[in-house]
Amino acid sequence: MVLVRQELGDVLRDLRQERGCTLRQIAGRASVALGYLSEVERGQKEASSEILASVADALDVPISRIMREVGDRLAVLEEMAVSDDAALGRIPDTVPDELVASVGRTAARRGH
Amino acid sequence: MVLVRQELGDVLRDLRQERGCTLRQIAGRASVALGYLSEVERGQKEASSEILASVADALDVPISRIMREVGDRLAVLEEMAVSDDAALGRIPDTVPDELVASVGRTAARRGH
Repeated sequence: MVLVRQELGDVLRDLRQERGCTLRQIAGRASVALGYLSEVERGQKEASSEILASVADALDVPISRIMREVGDRLAVLEEMAVSDDAALGRIPDTVPDELVASVGRTAARRGH
Repeated sequence: MVLVRQELGDVLRDLRQERGCTLRQIAGRASVALGYLSEVERGQKEASSEILASVADALDVPISRIMREVGDRLAVLEEMAVSDDAALGRIPDTVPDELVASVGRTAARRGH
């Protein structure tokens, strides 16, 4: 089952790392516990809408961008799941390379 | 503050109504309590990723589509919040009419 919180966690971590920020910095700015943010990034905890808004603010990213990115990554995973190509380890040509790279990392970590 | 669960609830309700389904039907198919689904649709409860997956399945909609739609609606609300036009009750020309209609209903309900 494809879970939103896993993709959301990946997106939040990628955005944080793109900005060269530590967990501690973003947790501090967003006023959330460092351990909690870490669990959210690893897809182990659901983030409430209020916490998500705070973290987006701390990252200086609109929530809309985060949710669209989550949607885009879920779409790639869905396509991989239904495509016969997935069984052969190939990715459809219609999937942008950038997304393949980011989801590829996710899939690798999860042992796909 | 723009909250993801409110837009998510609106998207889930719109998708259900587009399909001519009752809350009871979708709650039954998704194996979630009717009262809970109702609260999720009204943006009063956060849906866990597992429940969201079940409801998406019951609606026969990929989760990716739901999250992209949530992202699109959040973008419209963000644009309304930052735009000077918002103060005058005008909506930027760059916003698709379909989105304006759906978010307009949301905004009206919330007294914007």
